[in-house]
Amino acid sequence: MQRAGSNVAKEMIKEAIAEKFDIKSLISSSSSSNAIRVADLGCSVGTNTFTAMQNVIESMERKCHSNDTTTKIPEFQLFFNDHASNDFNTLFTSLPLDRPYFAAGVPGSFHARLFPKSSLHFVHSSYALQWLSKLPEDLVDKSSLAWNKGRIHYTSAPEQVANAYAAQFAKDMEVFLNARADEIAVGGMMILNIPALPHGVRPSQLMSSVLSDFVEQTLFDMVTAGSISEAEADSFNLPLYFPSPKEMTQLVHNNGHFSIERMEITDPRSMIDFPITIPALIMHFMSGFESVFTEHFGGEIIDELFERTLGKSDEISSRFASSYNKGTTLFLVLKRK
Amino acid sequence: MQRAGSNVAKEMIKEAIAEKFDIKSLISSSSSSNAIRVADLGCSVGTNTFTAMQNVIESMERKCHSNDTTTKIPEFQLFFNDHASNDFNTLFTSLPLDRPYFAAGVPGSFHARLFPKSSLHFVHSSYALQWLSKLPEDLVDKSSLAWNKGRIHYTSAPEQVANAYAAQFAKDMEVFLNARADEIAVGGMMILNIPALPHGVRPSQLMSSVLSDFVEQTLFDMVTAGSISEAEADSFNLPLYFPSPKEMTQLVHNNGHFSIERMEITDPRSMIDFPITIPALIMHFMSGFESVFTEHFGGEIIDELFERTLGKSDEISSRFASSYNKGTTLFLVLKRK
Repeated sequence: MQRAGSNVAKEMIKEAIAEKFDIKSLISSSSSSNAIRVADLGCSVGTNTFTAMQNVIESMERKCHSNDTTTKIPEFQLFFNDHASNDFNTLFTSLPLDRPYFAAGVPGSFHARLFPKSSLHFVHSSYALQWLSKLPEDLVDKSSLAWNKGRIHYTSAPEQVANAYAAQFAKDMEVFLNARADEIAVGGMMILNIPALPHGVRPSQLMSSVLSDFVEQTLFDMVTAGSISEAEADSFNLPLYFPSPKEMTQLVHNNGHFSIERMEITDPRSMIDFPITIPALIMHFMSGFESVFTEHFGGEIIDELFERTLGKSDEISSRFASSYNKGTTLFLVLKRK
Repeated sequence: MQRAGSNVAKEMIKEAIAEKFDIKSLISSSSSSNAIRVADLGCSVGTNTFTAMQNVIESMERKCHSNDTTTKIPEFQLFFNDHASNDFNTLFTSLPLDRPYFAAGVPGSFHARLFPKSSLHFVHSSYALQWLSKLPEDLVDKSSLAWNKGRIHYTSAPEQVANAYAAQFAKDMEVFLNARADEIAVGGMMILNIPALPHGVRPSQLMSSVLSDFVEQTLFDMVTAGSISEAEADSFNLPLYFPSPKEMTQLVHNNGHFSIERMEITDPRSMIDFPITIPALIMHFMSGFESVFTEHFGGEIIDELFERTLGKSDEISSRFASSYNKGTTLFLVLKRK
């Protein structure tokens, strides 16, 4: 799914670099070292990040060749970022051998500064910003209207719960944009690819919400069966948020450091040329959140949670029929003002 | 031992930065981003690299404070380099939490380019340059005068073997210095700490040579005992070289890109305030070379090699009595011309 998302983005990234990335003036303003510095934030262990970065470099090289007065191809330094707990050993030993760039790994949360001031020219982040830096505290506060008892997410929850999630996402984006504004040189570009909520769609209509609803049901089935305690299930919430294009526009404007050069909803699933089965989707969902479940419940419940959810495949399939089945990935090109 | 080496170097690094590192002009020549970029080459996973880098940063901060017109403290970006097979996961999760720098890991051999042109201001490498990039081919060529049959190193071997090692080290240093000359901005500093051969000392007199002589004996004892084949033992050699100060001076002069600001033999052992036992030294030696032995012989021989060498502790002890027991670590401050 993420690879499909990257493929859709590939052409759009090419276009953004060709039309809006002023490589020539960025090189000349970086004086002694004429390297272009690129970061992929939330890169995981690859190969998606290598493919995406290869595309970025090739697009920049093409741009240099096509400039009126041909620009010398600069050297590229690529920074692969993810949490310190990411498997950088695998990332480093999988790096393409004939890579046309100098590679570095940067451990740490992108909800904080990671690089020196004005040291980056291009930042890419794909399927990473939907992760909240932390869960809103109100979700587990019995005295709050946003107490999320009996649920694990906001998509089918009362407005107050959704608002608590939205507020946390807004805080995270402000921190993220401020950190990147410090790090990206004026004129530099940032491309974000993030699961989102298209205009006119309710959160509960998203296919991922349908899946999380059934996982939620399964968790509370397991409470009934005595596999986990009610308190454990009640205090669990998924740290994910899907912003609308309007929300993202507002957050970028309020921050003030970036101009929006392009914003578009894309449909990665349209790129997948094989039938996606319900078990495959459940598997995809579970593997994406395994560490989140394991951290809260311990690893023992994973198999039961997976098997029981698999048992609901027919119900999930019929709910999918009435869910929103078009594109939900927001592609966003920003430029540092 | 390496920590002791770092401690001896600590004060000398402070001095080199205080007296010879022109932080002010290096910052102003790096325009938009005023970060100082520092690399530790061959950093391993340790705390040694964090301690050394902490000392470098503190020395630079002190320098800023003491400048005539007080210089603003710059931001620091630190690059931790080692082979891609190094355990960067451990390195990254051990990084000091309150570090006053932005950290990055750089996988790859320092016998090649690792960074963009003129992008570094300070390079440090401790106990790493003695490792050859590869073994001279002549060592296993039966038709060569440098064929090293019945031995595992050059320190007690005929001149031709030592020459083959010296030639490989010279090639490696030329590649190393050229790569660093590309990467270090003019005026930037490089500090090297490397096990060496002091003036007037024969290679066979070094304590490490005494140890490797006994490990060599043990290996051929194991050939006699049938644990390993003679061909296996004959084709094994340690990929290590200890240059003399004179050799290093010549190599740096021939390369031409760096001036020698300081060169000195230091004695890390003088910093160790507890008695070093022979078994501890054998353990230190074996753990340093375990991967080298394992790669050639497989992991099964390690325990026997260790136990049998341990059995020679008394002989080793008496040979140590006549070995060279003063400092053998070369401390070198270079400046990019």
